[in-house]
Amino acid sequence: MAKELKDLTKRSENYSQWYNDLVIKADLAEQSAVRGCMVIKPYGYAIWEKIQRQLDDMFKETGHVNAYFPLLIPKSFLSREAEHVEGFAKECAVVTHHRLKNSPDGKGVIVDPEAKLEEELIIRPTSETIIWNTYRNWINSYRDLPILVNQWANVMRWEMRTRLFLRTAEFLWQEGHTAHATRQEAEEEAVRMLGVYAEFAEKHMAVPVITGVKSANERFAGALDTYTIEAMMQDGKALQSGTSHFLGQNFAKAFDVQFVNKENKMEYVWATSWGVSTRLMGALIMTHSDDNGLVLPPVLAPIQVVIVPIYKNDEQLNLINEKVAGMVAKFKKMGISVKYDNTDNKRPGFKFADYELKGVPVRLVMGARDLENNTMEVMRRDTLTKETVSCEGIEEYVQNLLDEIQENIYQKALSARNTRIRSVETYDEFKEEIEKGGFIMAHWDGTPETEEKIKEETKATIRCIPFDTFVEGDKTPGTCMVTGKPSECRVVFARAY
Amino acid sequence: MAKELKDLTKRSENYSQWYNDLVIKADLAEQSAVRGCMVIKPYGYAIWEKIQRQLDDMFKETGHVNAYFPLLIPKSFLSREAEHVEGFAKECAVVTHHRLKNSPDGKGVIVDPEAKLEEELIIRPTSETIIWNTYRNWINSYRDLPILVNQWANVMRWEMRTRLFLRTAEFLWQEGHTAHATRQEAEEEAVRMLGVYAEFAEKHMAVPVITGVKSANERFAGALDTYTIEAMMQDGKALQSGTSHFLGQNFAKAFDVQFVNKENKMEYVWATSWGVSTRLMGALIMTHSDDNGLVLPPVLAPIQVVIVPIYKNDEQLNLINEKVAGMVAKFKKMGISVKYDNTDNKRPGFKFADYELKGVPVRLVMGARDLENNTMEVMRRDTLTKETVSCEGIEEYVQNLLDEIQENIYQKALSARNTRIRSVETYDEFKEEIEKGGFIMAHWDGTPETEEKIKEETKATIRCIPFDTFVEGDKTPGTCMVTGKPSECRVVFARAY
Repeated sequence: MAKELKDLTKRSENYSQWYNDLVIKADLAEQSAVRGCMVIKPYGYAIWEKIQRQLDDMFKETGHVNAYFPLLIPKSFLSREAEHVEGFAKECAVVTHHRLKNSPDGKGVIVDPEAKLEEELIIRPTSETIIWNTYRNWINSYRDLPILVNQWANVMRWEMRTRLFLRTAEFLWQEGHTAHATRQEAEEEAVRMLGVYAEFAEKHMAVPVITGVKSANERFAGALDTYTIEAMMQDGKALQSGTSHFLGQNFAKAFDVQFVNKENKMEYVWATSWGVSTRLMGALIMTHSDDNGLVLPPVLAPIQVVIVPIYKNDEQLNLINEKVAGMVAKFKKMGISVKYDNTDNKRPGFKFADYELKGVPVRLVMGARDLENNTMEVMRRDTLTKETVSCEGIEEYVQNLLDEIQENIYQKALSARNTRIRSVETYDEFKEEIEKGGFIMAHWDGTPETEEKIKEETKATIRCIPFDTFVEGDKTPGTCMVTGKPSECRVVFARAY
Repeated sequence: MAKELKDLTKRSENYSQWYNDLVIKADLAEQSAVRGCMVIKPYGYAIWEKIQRQLDDMFKETGHVNAYFPLLIPKSFLSREAEHVEGFAKECAVVTHHRLKNSPDGKGVIVDPEAKLEEELIIRPTSETIIWNTYRNWINSYRDLPILVNQWANVMRWEMRTRLFLRTAEFLWQEGHTAHATRQEAEEEAVRMLGVYAEFAEKHMAVPVITGVKSANERFAGALDTYTIEAMMQDGKALQSGTSHFLGQNFAKAFDVQFVNKENKMEYVWATSWGVSTRLMGALIMTHSDDNGLVLPPVLAPIQVVIVPIYKNDEQLNLINEKVAGMVAKFKKMGISVKYDNTDNKRPGFKFADYELKGVPVRLVMGARDLENNTMEVMRRDTLTKETVSCEGIEEYVQNLLDEIQENIYQKALSARNTRIRSVETYDEFKEEIEKGGFIMAHWDGTPETEEKIKEETKATIRCIPFDTFVEGDKTPGTCMVTGKPSECRVVFARAY
C-alpha cells in the first residue's frame, strides 16, 4: 500500500499523466473490471459526498425537492423527441433479456433466449423522457405548477474514450427537472440554477467559472437554450462543469403534458433540466493540485486538519497524546474535521508526504521542543509554508487559516484563469493563440457552419457566449474573424475536455 | 390533485388494498412505465432521505466509509461463487448491446446488431462479486484490513410480482461490504451491524424487531450465516427488514483475495455484507398507519409540525400570520421541521384530512378565539386527540410531544407485536395458529426437509432462530412439532411478505 511520491509525474512533463497518477495515488478512484466504469474509492467518495450535501442544501434553499425515477427507459421513449434521440440514443447500454440460465455445457451461465424482452430497455443516459412521461400524470392545472424536482442518480453513456471522473461510461450526477406554467418562469429557473452552479463552483470548489449560453452546435439535444459554467484547467484546456437547459415545450409536446392555464385554456408545460456530475471532481483536481499532490478547498476536504506527533519514546508520545486530545475535541466542536495520526507503523516523513498527496489543507506537528514551548508547527498545503504557533488559541488560528486558504486558492485560480483569457482580432492570430491554451475571445458570425469550420481546423469550440465581459470590448459588435460577417459580441473559444 | 380520503380502503376490509391506496394517496410512490420499477415521489423520497441520513451517521459512527462500485457486473463474475449464482443470476437485467441505430423503416430506433458486447453485463442484483474482484487489488497484508466500506446504490432483481416498496424490480439500498483478517472479527462485524439495524428500526422507525439468525434455507446465497431483523405487520405477516451476512471466505476464494497475516502466511480474507433497502418504507407504513392515513415517527417525518390558520377575513389572517411567524422561527431554531400552511385555495377541513393522510405528527390550529385567548389547538396524529394549549412555551410543549409520540407509537407497535407472539406445541396447533397470523414459536428438528414441508403445507417460513427469548421456555430444548426429533430451542415461524 506504500505510495511512492516520486512516481507522481510532474505537470510540466505530462499533464495528462500527472492527472491520472494523482487520481490513482491519492486514492480517489480507479478503473473497474467493466470497461469505462470507475470505482470511486472512499477518499474520493468522501469529497463527492461533501459536494452532494452542499449542493443539495442549495437546491433545497431554492425550493427544490428530491425524488427518484427508474434506471431503465423504454427504447421507444427516446425516439419521442426528435433531437433528443439523435443526441442520446446512439451510444447506450441496452437491456434485452431478463434471465440467465445454466449453460448446457455446465460451464457458467448463459442468457436465456426465452427471456427476451418485448421492448428493449435503455439504461438512462439522462432522464428527461421517463420523467416527462411521469409528469403527464402529475400535472392537470396551473395549480400543480411549478414542479421543482431533483434526482441524485447514476447514468450511463457508452463512451469510447474514458478518463477517471472526466468521462466515464457510468457516472454519478444530479439532474433537476422542473415544470412551469410560463416560458418566462422556466427561462428564469434555468438561469437561476446556473447561478447556483456558479456560486457552488466559486464559493465551495474555489473554481472560477465563466457563465454564459451555448451556441446552437453545443446545445443539449432537445433544448432551446443551454447555459453553462466553464472552468479553465492548468493546462489551458476548458472544462464544462455544469449545464442548465431551457427546454421550451419540447418534452411536454413529445409526452403530451398539457395543463389548464389561468385563462382556462389547455397549454403545453414549460421545462428546464440542469445537472452536474462526478466530472466536478476532475475540475476540482485539475484546478488546484500541484506536483506534490492534491490541493483541496477546505470547504470540501474530508480531513481539514491533520495532527502528527514526533516523539522519541512512549513518554513523549503520551504527553503529546494528552495535549492533543483537548485540541481534537475543540476542533470537532467547531465543526472542523480533524485527524490525529499517531499510528506508529509509519515515519513522520511518510505521513507528511501522504497527507500532502491527499491535499489535507492544514497540518499540525508537535515534537519534543514544541511540547516544551507549548507550540506547534503549522503547515498550509496551498503554499507549503510553515510557521510555529502557540497552542494557546491555535484552534481559532486554524479556523481562520482554513478560511484564508479557501480564499487564497480561489484567488490563485482566478488569477491563473484571467491570465489565460485573451482577445484576438484575426483568424491567424486565433490559430496561434489557441495553441497556447486558455480562453480566446473572438468575433464569430453566429453560424453553425463557421463554428464547425473553426472546430475542424483548430480543435477549438465555442465554450459559450458569455454573460459577463472579461476583456474590454467583449460586448461590442465587430466582424467575424473567419468570414468577416457582422458579429454581435465576442464569444469564448477554447479547446476543451 | 384533490385527494378523496373516502377512497382509502379500510384495513379491516382489505389490508393489501389499504396499503396500495395509502402509498398512492399519500404521494409516496407510484408505478412507472417500466414493469416493476417505481417512481419514488418527493414526499416518499423525503422520508427515505431521512432514513438514509440517519443510518449513514450510524455507519460512520461505527467506523464505516462510503464508496461507489459499478452498476454493471460481467456475467462470468456471477458464476464464480457457486451458491451465489444460483441465488442471483437467474432473474436479472442483462445488457447485451451498447448502441441503437435508426430503424431502416424510418420509425424510431432499433438495437444495432453490430454493437453486441463480447461478454454480457448484468445490472447488479447485489455487489459482492464486483466488490470482491476490486478488493483483490486493495488487500495485500493484514495492515490493509479491516476494510469497512458501505455503498448507497440502486440494484435490480427481475421480480415477477411486485408491490410498491415491498418488492420492486429496481430498488434503492445500502450494502456494506467488509473485509477482515480473522473469522472472529468478521462474525462480530456481522452481528454488530445487525445491532445497528435493530437500533435504527426501534429507535428511529419505532418498529420493534426480532433479531436472530436464519435457517440454512433462508440464508443469503453465498453466506455461512445470515442474521436478520424481522418486523410484524398489522395483518399478522412478518416483514424481513434488514439482513447481515457472515460470508466466511467464500468470496475471497472465488475472487482469490489473500493477505499476508501476522504470522507471515497467506490466508483468504474473511467477509461480511449487510443491507437495508427502500423496503423499510413498507415496514414503516404498515407498522403504524391507520384508516386515516400515514402515521410517521417524528424522527423520520419530513414535516413534524403543521400550523393551520382559521380566519374569517384578511385582518384575522394577518394577525395570525404575525403571531405564527415567531413560532415558526423558534421551531426551526430548535431543529423541528415546521410548515405553516396559510394557502387560501383549500379549506381547513381539506388541509386537516390531507395532513392526517400524510402522517404529520403534530397539527397546530389557530382561530379567532385562540387569537383572543393566546392559545392554539394541538392535535397529535398518533391518537388523533386534541387539546387547547397556551401559546406561551408552546414550542417546548410540542418538542416534548414529539418525543412522546415517538415513544408511544413504538410502545403501541411493541404491544401489538407482542400479542402476536405465541408458542405452540403440536403441528395441528401450529396449523391453526398460523392462520391467525403473527409469530409462532415452535420446536423444529433443524433440518431443511422439515422446514420445507412446513412451508409447503402452511406457507409459513422460519423467520429466524431468535437471539432473545420472547415467551417462557423459548431457549429450552424440546421435540420437533413435525417429526418428534430433538430440537435445541424454539424458532420463529410466520407467513411473510
